[in-house]
Amino acid sequence: MTQDLLLKNVRPMAGAATDMLLRGGRIARIAPGQEAAGALVEDGGGALVIPGLVEAHTHLDKTLWGMGWVPNSAGPRLIDKIDNERRLKHELGIDPARQSARQVVQSLRMGTTQIRTHVDVDVAVGVAGIAGVMETRARFADSMDIEVVAFPQSGILAHAGTVELLEEAMRMGSDVVGGLDPCGIDRDPKGHLDVVFGLAERFGKPVDIHLHELGLLGAFSMELIFERIRALGMQGRVTVSHAFCLGDPDAAMVGALLDEIAALDVAIMTTGPASRPAPPVARLLAMGIRTCAGSDGIRDTWQPYGTADMLERAMLVGLRNNFRRDDELSMALAVCTTGGAATMRTEGYGLEEGCTADLVLVPGETLAEAIVSRPERALVVKRGRVVARAGHALVQAP
Amino acid sequence: MTQDLLLKNVRPMAGAATDMLLRGGRIARIAPGQEAAGALVEDGGGALVIPGLVEAHTHLDKTLWGMGWVPNSAGPRLIDKIDNERRLKHELGIDPARQSARQVVQSLRMGTTQIRTHVDVDVAVGVAGIAGVMETRARFADSMDIEVVAFPQSGILAHAGTVELLEEAMRMGSDVVGGLDPCGIDRDPKGHLDVVFGLAERFGKPVDIHLHELGLLGAFSMELIFERIRALGMQGRVTVSHAFCLGDPDAAMVGALLDEIAALDVAIMTTGPASRPAPPVARLLAMGIRTCAGSDGIRDTWQPYGTADMLERAMLVGLRNNFRRDDELSMALAVCTTGGAATMRTEGYGLEEGCTADLVLVPGETLAEAIVSRPERALVVKRGRVVARAGHALVQAP
Ligand SMILES: [Zn+2]
Ligand SMILES: [Zn+2]
Repeated sequence: MTQDLLLKNVRPMAGAATDMLLRGGRIARIAPGQEAAGALVEDGGGALVIPGLVEAHTHLDKTLWGMGWVPNSAGPRLIDKIDNERRLKHELGIDPARQSARQVVQSLRMGTTQIRTHVDVDVAVGVAGIAGVMETRARFADSMDIEVVAFPQSGILAHAGTVELLEEAMRMGSDVVGGLDPCGIDRDPKGHLDVVFGLAERFGKPVDIHLHELGLLGAFSMELIFERIRALGMQGRVTVSHAFCLGDPDAAMVGALLDEIAALDVAIMTTGPASRPAPPVARLLAMGIRTCAGSDGIRDTWQPYGTADMLERAMLVGLRNNFRRDDELSMALAVCTTGGAATMRTEGYGLEEGCTADLVLVPGETLAEAIVSRPERALVVKRGRVVARAGHALVQAP
Repeated sequence: MTQDLLLKNVRPMAGAATDMLLRGGRIARIAPGQEAAGALVEDGGGALVIPGLVEAHTHLDKTLWGMGWVPNSAGPRLIDKIDNERRLKHELGIDPARQSARQVVQSLRMGTTQIRTHVDVDVAVGVAGIAGVMETRARFADSMDIEVVAFPQSGILAHAGTVELLEEAMRMGSDVVGGLDPCGIDRDPKGHLDVVFGLAERFGKPVDIHLHELGLLGAFSMELIFERIRALGMQGRVTVSHAFCLGDPDAAMVGALLDEIAALDVAIMTTGPASRPAPPVARLLAMGIRTCAGSDGIRDTWQPYGTADMLERAMLVGLRNNFRRDDELSMALAVCTTGGAATMRTEGYGLEEGCTADLVLVPGETLAEAIVSRPERALVVKRGRVVARAGHALVQAP
């Protein structure tokens, strides 16, 4: 049983200073002037408290974090990047267990307490990525919740044997069925989505599809997704990641898609991409659409950016959406916290009494300041236990 | 006379480890195994050396840095933001001398060694901003080079007396004549630009114009600028800041503008704006167009973002331009270093022997890594003298 933890002089969501008693992995009591015999006491020094940051979309299995700098010279086309990745995976020996553990520790010290990761499943790597990430999930079970998406990075129909590998990944305990650009990769949107939703139905799992397709093509793929949600009664169980087509200038098209997304309770994941059309976050939130954010790949063969800091992600989402007011920056933080939890259907998430004690102490005056300054995380707490302090994780990366 | 400084075991532009001897404010010798009697010796520990970062566009006079968090609740229109600023300037007492000093010290600890700042000149503040920034310029003369642009933030023709204030600002020693959205603000592009270029001609100074106008309207304003450059022989003496219209999807329009920009040697400044069309940096550089970057306003009444870190700006420029390869990230760094110096016509800028010894030591393996990691600056050197160490400026902010 975890020892009680009493956080003195902290400001939940930048509100008034109070004390928070964490007991049995939950937030037991929020009130000023608390004493608790036998509890560990941490002086928050007036720091903000936010709920644990949620990394709702990344690729733990293939980060190059901690491997020394790998120069990127891949060509501009999607196929160049996929080929570059396949070549480097082989040449560099990107070990999914080791690499996912490294990113998990980096995420943890930045205040992330849960992660949804897409993990490559294809005929080259088989389910080795899934096995490696499962190993990391078990290893850090006390420090980080990890949801695994079986992700067909190389397409499904283009390579015989992929369906069977996806089935194996689901049997191994993957939580979500992944998909990728139904038109663009397999050149067979019906075939691709029939497999994805077929697996979801068979294994009783939700779906999270990467959709980079632009404009009308992306809208068409979305419509095919909507049709399957309706046919299978999968309302509330599908995420569309990236959803660039929702940033299209065609307002009528986007409006129609958003109405369907709201009606079918589809969740949308955005990275706040600066060089691509992007879902309009304020509008999504106003419509009650579950909206979350993720780093996507961090320092991998696709691109070199990323620090696994979801406060930095909130800044990027804010910049992409031209958020300037404090209430707008709160929306950017919401997609990196509550929006991620809503997407992953995390029970007990939040800062109320009774919620799971996943939280982060951040020095600063306001939530907006936390986003634009991104100071060192003073304390990260997972299920009532301190897992990082002063920017350092208390668990070791390999 | 500054004491000689010998930097041991450093890697200029991430090349091979060597030593750099700095003497009389210049880079005297780059060669391994140097000894220098009487020199201060700094062990670089294999850090990268880059030339001093260049902040080519900011607003030193009105940052709220160090003033405590000022919540932003301004409305969405340009006029809402201008009104909000005018009100807060009055209510908060934003002292231009104090505030500019604070931002200068922050910039300095981040490795910036020269700044071009636009400073408000209007009938509300008169030339008080200019006077305040001039005070800061004098105060930090040994640590930071500051170029002052007399900037008509509220327009020129809309408020009688502004022209005279701009004249006064130029007589006070402003280095550059500023301008702002010739169509959008004064609603009189000819009148606005005639004043701007008239002042430039009379005072023999270059021009730097904020141009947020989009699409054909921005292109029209650019054409009016080109006409005046040609008429006055001001080739090579004009910067267009933001230049959102160069990010327009109309390729023919953009191509024609870029040809003119190259022919007239106009410099372009970009912040890498995530929510706006942006100049295509790789294409500009390929055409030989002087291209620089800036933070624009840092934590001011317009918007809350910004840390004055030009490595972070390089990241944002990289993200905006979809730069992924190492050679692309080098371009992002170039606009934050050499591009800024080319825009400001800084003599002796660079890392060659004989260049001014303005430079930064950054831990890391490669230039790309410096941009994506943005580690604490190990050492910042201005004219051969250490001005910041381990992330801390050696000069005090007020
Ligand atoms: Zn992804
Ligand atoms: Zn500006």
